[in-house]
Amino acid sequence: MEFKKKKLANGLVIIGEVNKSAKSAAVGFFVKTGSRDESKQINGVSHFLEHMLFKGTERLSAFEVSAAFDRTGAQFNASTSEENTVFYAGVLPEYLAEVTGLWIELMRPALRDADFNIEKDVIKEEIAMYKDLPSFDVMEKCRSLHFDGHPCGNSVLGSEESIDSLTAEQMRDYFRGRYAPNNMVFACAGNFDWEQICSIAAECCSKWQEQAAARKLEHCRGSKKRQRVEKTNLAREHICLMSPGVSAQDARRFAASLLGVIIGDDVGSRFFWELVDKALAEVATMQFEAMDGTGAFYSYIRCSAENVTKVLDTVSGIFQSLSKDGITEDELRKAKNKVLSALVIKNELPMGRLIDLGFNWTYLEQYRTVEDDIGAIKAVTVNDVNELTEQFNPGDFTQLSIGPAQE
Amino acid sequence: MEFKKKKLANGLVIIGEVNKSAKSAAVGFFVKTGSRDESKQINGVSHFLEHMLFKGTERLSAFEVSAAFDRTGAQFNASTSEENTVFYAGVLPEYLAEVTGLWIELMRPALRDADFNIEKDVIKEEIAMYKDLPSFDVMEKCRSLHFDGHPCGNSVLGSEESIDSLTAEQMRDYFRGRYAPNNMVFACAGNFDWEQICSIAAECCSKWQEQAAARKLEHCRGSKKRQRVEKTNLAREHICLMSPGVSAQDARRFAASLLGVIIGDDVGSRFFWELVDKALAEVATMQFEAMDGTGAFYSYIRCSAENVTKVLDTVSGIFQSLSKDGITEDELRKAKNKVLSALVIKNELPMGRLIDLGFNWTYLEQYRTVEDDIGAIKAVTVNDVNELTEQFNPGDFTQLSIGPAQE
Repeated sequence: MEFKKKKLANGLVIIGEVNKSAKSAAVGFFVKTGSRDESKQINGVSHFLEHMLFKGTERLSAFEVSAAFDRTGAQFNASTSEENTVFYAGVLPEYLAEVTGLWIELMRPALRDADFNIEKDVIKEEIAMYKDLPSFDVMEKCRSLHFDGHPCGNSVLGSEESIDSLTAEQMRDYFRGRYAPNNMVFACAGNFDWEQICSIAAECCSKWQEQAAARKLEHCRGSKKRQRVEKTNLAREHICLMSPGVSAQDARRFAASLLGVIIGDDVGSRFFWELVDKALAEVATMQFEAMDGTGAFYSYIRCSAENVTKVLDTVSGIFQSLSKDGITEDELRKAKNKVLSALVIKNELPMGRLIDLGFNWTYLEQYRTVEDDIGAIKAVTVNDVNELTEQFNPGDFTQLSIGPAQE
Repeated sequence: MEFKKKKLANGLVIIGEVNKSAKSAAVGFFVKTGSRDESKQINGVSHFLEHMLFKGTERLSAFEVSAAFDRTGAQFNASTSEENTVFYAGVLPEYLAEVTGLWIELMRPALRDADFNIEKDVIKEEIAMYKDLPSFDVMEKCRSLHFDGHPCGNSVLGSEESIDSLTAEQMRDYFRGRYAPNNMVFACAGNFDWEQICSIAAECCSKWQEQAAARKLEHCRGSKKRQRVEKTNLAREHICLMSPGVSAQDARRFAASLLGVIIGDDVGSRFFWELVDKALAEVATMQFEAMDGTGAFYSYIRCSAENVTKVLDTVSGIFQSLSKDGITEDELRKAKNKVLSALVIKNELPMGRLIDLGFNWTYLEQYRTVEDDIGAIKAVTVNDVNELTEQFNPGDFTQLSIGPAQE
C-alpha cells in the first residue's frame, strides 16, 4: 500500500493509493458541491448537473459516452448529496487509463440546451417518484425542519417548481463556479500505475481554470420543532427524529458513529430490542451523519397508527436512560466489532477504498490508512461516548411525522 | 491462494481457499435444497425453514442467536432459491472461529412449534408483499408457466394456502432429509487458518447423520405458452419471456452468459438500444440462469400499455436478426469486458469469493480459481455464441404479461 499525491497549479489534487495485490482498480472525481451550495432559486441544480454530465461533451454525444463506458466493461456510478457530487468506476487494470480519460472528459460537459430540456422531465419524474416513498419523504421534510434555514436543509432533488424555473444558463454558471479544479479531488485506488494515471490527469486537467469556490460553514443546533403531516393514502406512521452532532472534521466523529450503532443499528441495538423485537415498530434505526462543519443524528421509525404513542414513549425512555446511565462496556465492544468489520470489508475492495480515500481528502485534506481508522475506533472509550451524549443530548430532537389522517 | 478440502465420513465436504493478503474472512453453508425439491403440499418449506434456523437451537433462544452474531460484528445473511439455501457471513479474522461455531450450531435448529406458528405470519406477510411487486409477480408466474409441471417452476415463497396448511412436523421431516451432511458444503474464503476452521467443522459436524438426499434432474425445454393476466391497479405492462438454456454443469454456460449480456444488459445491449434508448420500454433486460441439469434465459420488460405491440415486434426483430446474422466480434468483446470486470470485482472480496467457491462445489464438485473462469470467458468465440443461439433459439419463448385491463 503506497500513497501518492500531486497538486496541480490550478489547485486540482490528484491522490492515489496503490495496492499491487488488488485485482481491480477504481477511479473517481469528488466534487465538493451539493444542495447546500445552492440558492433557493436554483435548488436541485447539483443533482440535475450530475445527470447532465452523462449527456456528452463537445466531442462526444450521449450515445458515445454510453458506448465508451460499455467498451471498458466498467462498473460506474455517480451520486449527489447535500455536500458532494461523486463520479466513480471500478474496472480491470487494463482499462483504467481509458476510463480515467473518459471521466476527465466528462468533467467538462457540453450542457446543451436541448439535452437540458429533455433531462428536466427525467428529473421531475424522479422527484415525483421519491415523493411517493414515505420513508424518503419524511427524511427530507425532517431535514428541512431541523436545519430550518441552514443550507444543509436544502433538498438534493429540488422541487418541481425550482426545477421548472431553472435555466440552462443558470446551470452553466453554477457549473463554472463549482466544478473548478480547486474544488475537486481526483482519486485512484487498487492495482494501477501511479505515474501513468497521474500524468494523464495532470496533462488533461491542467487547462481547467481555478475559481473562487467557497462554502459557508456554520454549525447548526437544529430547530427542535415538532410537526406532523397527514397523507390520506398511507397505512403507516413514518417518524423521523434529528438532533445535532459533531462535524466530519471532529475527532469525536468515531464516538458519534458508535453511539448511533448502539442506539439504532438494524439488529441488536436499543431501538431493536425495545421497539422492533417487541413488535411496536416495524423499522427503528438511528445513524450518525458527519457533515462539513456540522453533523446530525437521525432516526427513522415506522409503525402502525395505534402504536405511535407507545413508540414515542419508548424512544423517550431509551434516551432518558442513555442520559442517566450512559452506555455499557459490552454495548461499546459489540458496536466496535460491527463498525470495524463493515469498515474493513468495505475498504477491501478498490471501489470501497476509493470512497474513503476521496472523502478523507475532501473533508480533512488528509491521507488516512484503514489502520488509522481502525485505531481511532478501537481507542473510543465508554466515557467518550457518554460525554458526547451529555454535550449533544440526542433525546432533544426535531421531530417530523407523516401518517394517515387521525380520527 | 491455496485450496484445501476435507470430506467427512458422513459426506460433508469442507472446502477453503486461503488468501493471506485478505483483511477479512467469509464462511458459509451451502445446502443443496430449494423449492424444486418440494412437493406441492409443502411448497415454500425451504424458504420458511431458512427463517426458522435463526429462531434458535436446543441451547440457544432466538434472542441469544441474535446476540451471538451481534458480538462478532459479522455481516451475515441467508437466501433461498429454487435450488439452494445459503447461509454466510463476512467477519474480521479474529471472530471467524466464533461465527463458524455459531453457523454450525444453527444448522441443527430446534424447530419449536411455538416459533413455527409465529413465523408463519411473517412468511405470509412476505408472500403478500411480493404479490404487490409486479416485477416479481410476473417472473414467478412466467417461471411456473414455462416449467409447466417441472419442479423448477415451483414458487420459492410458496402460496398462502401451502404455508397455511404446512405443519411443523412436515418441516422437521423435510429438514432431516435435506439438511443432511452429504447434501451440504461448508466453505471458507479469505484470511483464515485452515487447520483451525477445518478441525472445528470436522469435530462439530461429524455427528450429523448421512441421509438419502437425491434430486431428480431433468432438462426442461419449456412450455412456450403465452398468457396475459389483468390487474386493475396497474399502470404499466410487465412482460416476462423465458426460453431454455444450458445447465450449470455445461461448459457452454459461459457463452450463454455472454449472450444474455449482449441481448439484455442494463446498458449498451440490443434491448437497451432498441427498446430503452428509444423510449419504447422503461426497463428491458435479459439474463441467463444456469441451473442443476437445466437452464433458462429470462427477459423482463416494462412499458406503457400503448407500446406493448411495438415492444413485442421489436423484440421479435431483435431475436430474428440474432438468428439470421448472429452476434458481432465487437459485441462479444464488450460483453466479455463487462462479465470479466464483474467477476473479478466480486471475487476480490472474501464474501463474494465464498459464493463462487461454494456454488462451484455444489454444482460441479470442482475447485475453480478465478483465473479458470477468466480463461473460460476469454476463450468464448463468436461461433460458440451463434451455435448456442441456433440450438436453443431464444426467440422461441414462453411469455407471461401482467397489465391493466384492456379496453
